[in-house]
Amino acid sequence: MPRIHFHQQLADLKDRLLAMAALAQQAVESAVDAYINSDLDLCQYVRKNETAINLAQREVDEMAYDLLAKEQPMAVDLRFILAVIKINGDLERIGDQAVSIARRTEELVAQNRPALPADIARMGTLAARMIRTAVLSLLDGDAQIAENVIAMDDEVDDLNRESQASLIEFIQNSPDRAAHALLAIMVARSLERISDHATNIATDVIFWIRGADLRHQASLAEAE
Amino acid sequence: MPRIHFHQQLADLKDRLLAMAALAQQAVESAVDAYINSDLDLCQYVRKNETAINLAQREVDEMAYDLLAKEQPMAVDLRFILAVIKINGDLERIGDQAVSIARRTEELVAQNRPALPADIARMGTLAARMIRTAVLSLLDGDAQIAENVIAMDDEVDDLNRESQASLIEFIQNSPDRAAHALLAIMVARSLERISDHATNIATDVIFWIRGADLRHQASLAEAE
Repeated sequence: MPRIHFHQQLADLKDRLLAMAALAQQAVESAVDAYINSDLDLCQYVRKNETAINLAQREVDEMAYDLLAKEQPMAVDLRFILAVIKINGDLERIGDQAVSIARRTEELVAQNRPALPADIARMGTLAARMIRTAVLSLLDGDAQIAENVIAMDDEVDDLNRESQASLIEFIQNSPDRAAHALLAIMVARSLERISDHATNIATDVIFWIRGADLRHQASLAEAE
Repeated sequence: MPRIHFHQQLADLKDRLLAMAALAQQAVESAVDAYINSDLDLCQYVRKNETAINLAQREVDEMAYDLLAKEQPMAVDLRFILAVIKINGDLERIGDQAVSIARRTEELVAQNRPALPADIARMGTLAARMIRTAVLSLLDGDAQIAENVIAMDDEVDDLNRESQASLIEFIQNSPDRAAHALLAIMVARSLERISDHATNIATDVIFWIRGADLRHQASLAEAE
């Protein structure tokens, strides 16, 4: 019976982390929408969302610590719980970056300027997809899906570089709008960092699964 | 005897983490020196250093996992080991940011431009001090020292904002040098992120100590 209880707690932990991931993904999508449409209400929403993310982070952490303290998880469960703690940290930082985008948007509105094109929408879509895919890889325990996230990171990096180059050109043509263009550069940079966090999550999933695989291979070798 | 062995392993883990912190701190100082003096050899050094940091990170992580898997650490030791895993991640990301500064420096040299003043030297000194102080707080288990790190973060944030404002002014006066100034903006931003990581480390130290304090208070309450 106690082991069943333990596995129920592990399942609860996973559910909590998925709820946290949904908040983080929503924060990114809302922040990008807010930026593109100069929407101050959405900025406010992103800030409130961050408070919820911080609270969720503490709860997930405490659940994970309790499990480690009260049970003696075996290698594969231990690696899973440690992966959850790391992923939790990355999700919280994704929330921070979303707030950073909201803050730039507020500055943009204060400057009474429209968002500059750059590929913010495309980067935002990709970054949100990376978070979703990374979480899916955790849910399914699928290292191949996690590898896909890592591959997507290159595309975001490329878009960030291209945006930056075109925004520098914009500044050279309209130097009085340097501050304005810099906001777009910083938003693109935040999205690039968000995709880095999604990549970290995918790496942690692989670590969890490969750890399990290695353990599995070791016991197969012993069985021979 | 086994408990003595366990405490020896905890001490070893702490030593390893301190060695890792020394590498990270050195990476930041070298990267800032490289930027200020356009020194490509130092850039190369920072890149090599990162390989060493990545290796050290994996070793610290594996040691921490082994301790969790083979021993059944009590609350205070458990929280310490979990803090080590998180701090380890922040140190590794500090190494990444140092490489990012080295990369900007290489672009700067390729553009054949000198470093722009901005307060990079001052920010670098502060960021390195924050890492050192955060590690000291871990070493001494002193939450007050950790609080000092968090206070220093505001100063770096202010310097970053001031640098950014003066660099935007520079761009407005010399639009053809926008790409050049943007490198300085990005280096300042990396230093700001490094100081965020040092702040995360300080927060983890406080979490470890306060966890211990709370536990202590609980057992005092039970004793009454």
